Amino acid sequence: MKQKVAVLGTGSWGLALGQTLIENGHDVVMWGRDEAQVAEIQEHHTNKAYLPNIVFPERLTATTNMADAVQDADAILFVVPTKAIRQVARQLVDVLTTVPVIIHASKGFEQETHFRISEILAQEIPSNKRKDIVVLSGPSHAEEVAVHDLTTITAASKNEAYAIYVQKLFSNGYFRVYTNDDVIGVETGAALKNIIALGAGAIHGLGLGDNAKAAIMTRGLAEITRLGVAMGADPLTFIGLSGFGDLIVTCTSIHSRNWRTGDMLGKGKSLDEILSSMGMIVEGVSTTKSAYELAQELEVEMPITEAIYQVLYENKDVHYVIEEMMKRDNKSEKEF
Amino acid sequence: MKQKVAVLGTGSWGLALGQTLIENGHDVVMWGRDEAQVAEIQEHHTNKAYLPNIVFPERLTATTNMADAVQDADAILFVVPTKAIRQVARQLVDVLTTVPVIIHASKGFEQETHFRISEILAQEIPSNKRKDIVVLSGPSHAEEVAVHDLTTITAASKNEAYAIYVQKLFSNGYFRVYTNDDVIGVETGAALKNIIALGAGAIHGLGLGDNAKAAIMTRGLAEITRLGVAMGADPLTFIGLSGFGDLIVTCTSIHSRNWRTGDMLGKGKSLDEILSSMGMIVEGVSTTKSAYELAQELEVEMPITEAIYQVLYENKDVHYVIEEMMKRDNKSEKEF
Repeated sequence: MKQKVAVLGTGSWGLALGQTLIENGHDVVMWGRDEAQVAEIQEHHTNKAYLPNIVFPERLTATTNMADAVQDADAILFVVPTKAIRQVARQLVDVLTTVPVIIHASKGFEQETHFRISEILAQEIPSNKRKDIVVLSGPSHAEEVAVHDLTTITAASKNEAYAIYVQKLFSNGYFRVYTNDDVIGVETGAALKNIIALGAGAIHGLGLGDNAKAAIMTRGLAEITRLGVAMGADPLTFIGLSGFGDLIVTCTSIHSRNWRTGDMLGKGKSLDEILSSMGMIVEGVSTTKSAYELAQELEVEMPITEAIYQVLYENKDVHYVIEEMMKRDNKSEKEF
Repeated sequence: MKQKVAVLGTGSWGLALGQTLIENGHDVVMWGRDEAQVAEIQEHHTNKAYLPNIVFPERLTATTNMADAVQDADAILFVVPTKAIRQVARQLVDVLTTVPVIIHASKGFEQETHFRISEILAQEIPSNKRKDIVVLSGPSHAEEVAVHDLTTITAASKNEAYAIYVQKLFSNGYFRVYTNDDVIGVETGAALKNIIALGAGAIHGLGLGDNAKAAIMTRGLAEITRLGVAMGADPLTFIGLSGFGDLIVTCTSIHSRNWRTGDMLGKGKSLDEILSSMGMIVEGVSTTKSAYELAQELEVEMPITEAIYQVLYENKDVHYVIEEMMKRDNKSEKEF
């Protein structure tokens, strides 16, 4: 059945998901804060900065007025940076006139509080003003979804009916949605994999090879699984699309901002230099801080996260820190 | 303590491991069947065909006489193609004068019987003629180990003391060995990942993108975990070095023969054409047949293996088969 979906956020991922929904026959309005970006979508159906070669469907419209965007919405999709989630949710509550399904496709933890994104949304949007909160996450570069490259992704909710609702909303020939009931696992996997991408990038920037890349990704998956399990996740979720799958795409693809940031760190550039040249948010940088603090709080051993934290926040030498981290004396593989 | 190790097999992986042992202060004699290869190692300390830029230590010697190679051996390392394992083991029993630790670093199943390599070795080498059988496996291109690039690998045995013996034998600053007690998981992961590498290569050859690569690797890890678990493995082993780790290196590196074979299949070359141009054994081709038969026997759903089997053994069109396979209707992520 045709649904009305409001997409909050006009970045590349929001646009690619909005286009997918339009192609599936739904009505979509995008909302964004940036007037120039919204005007570009409205007038030219493009976002030259993020997806230079794509012209989106004419039916994909955008507005800076959130009340207009969410009017009559059956579902509302959050695709804004993690640090904006709480504020955008508050703004939404003031203009909501329907009781929509809430979906989010953001990746990270709230700074200071370490809340997951679905926790922030549940806190800010009263339960009588929404249906379920569903997480949409997986190995998916917007650049590829926008050109209909085959993509698989997870829709996670404890409530199977709503996971299936989101699955049906997005599924088509090139966009394959799997359901999952482990919200904590999917959200922590999606957020934490960005730290390992920073590490894999640094390994590359330092001139190390494929064996070392596989090593940091494997040990990285082990440590993010450990933290995820300590936070309440099912370890097997981390073998899935939002763990292993997303880790692959983020650590082995030129499209990944987190990997590129790590690569430049490995080559000796400073974080300030890198972030200003990037011009987009690199979620892994703040996720590293959250994970470092969570690991201390929950007493989970996370040597890679600790190493990346030292490089990002304590100005330690990347070469020395990565070398020491890789040589750390772990004796057995099974540490969950 | 200095050990005497016989390495059976003079391929690139045997040479890289032999060199590592020499550098750790052990005595090593390589045994091989190919007289020209053995002579090249003895006279020039090279193997120009497999590792063109490496000159191995002078202390690394080789012989075609197995009795000479295994004389006084504390440990014997099998690094021969899977199809040669049983015959080489029989040959070994006839010339053994010590009771050595048996180590193997081969990947695959015996054709027809579907035995794992440690099972074949246990059948052929009577238990009073050997100590434990330990599996050495992980994400490790010989090309990189030979030049001392940082590498991590697993030594697996139910008997922890012997896993630690192998860990100590090989460990050094660039070669990090982790122990694991799940022999079945490590052996099945190592063998089955080659099938997924064929699939990931085919995806690339067909012109699909990074999202699709992540999808086949993730769904691939799920299906090899399913088969491994049906054979008696611990699912968590597949998140480790011989599962996830080895899958990454095999699916994302230009060094991988299995990936290259898949890539050429995707580009429309025939298997005969590919194998004759390769000049080395591509273990994934016969492993696909074993896994396909095992999946039927154990009633495990393996859509990727089935698709690759149809391309390799039933001359089905690669484009059609891969497309159909990726579109198969799997609804939920958790299927172990």
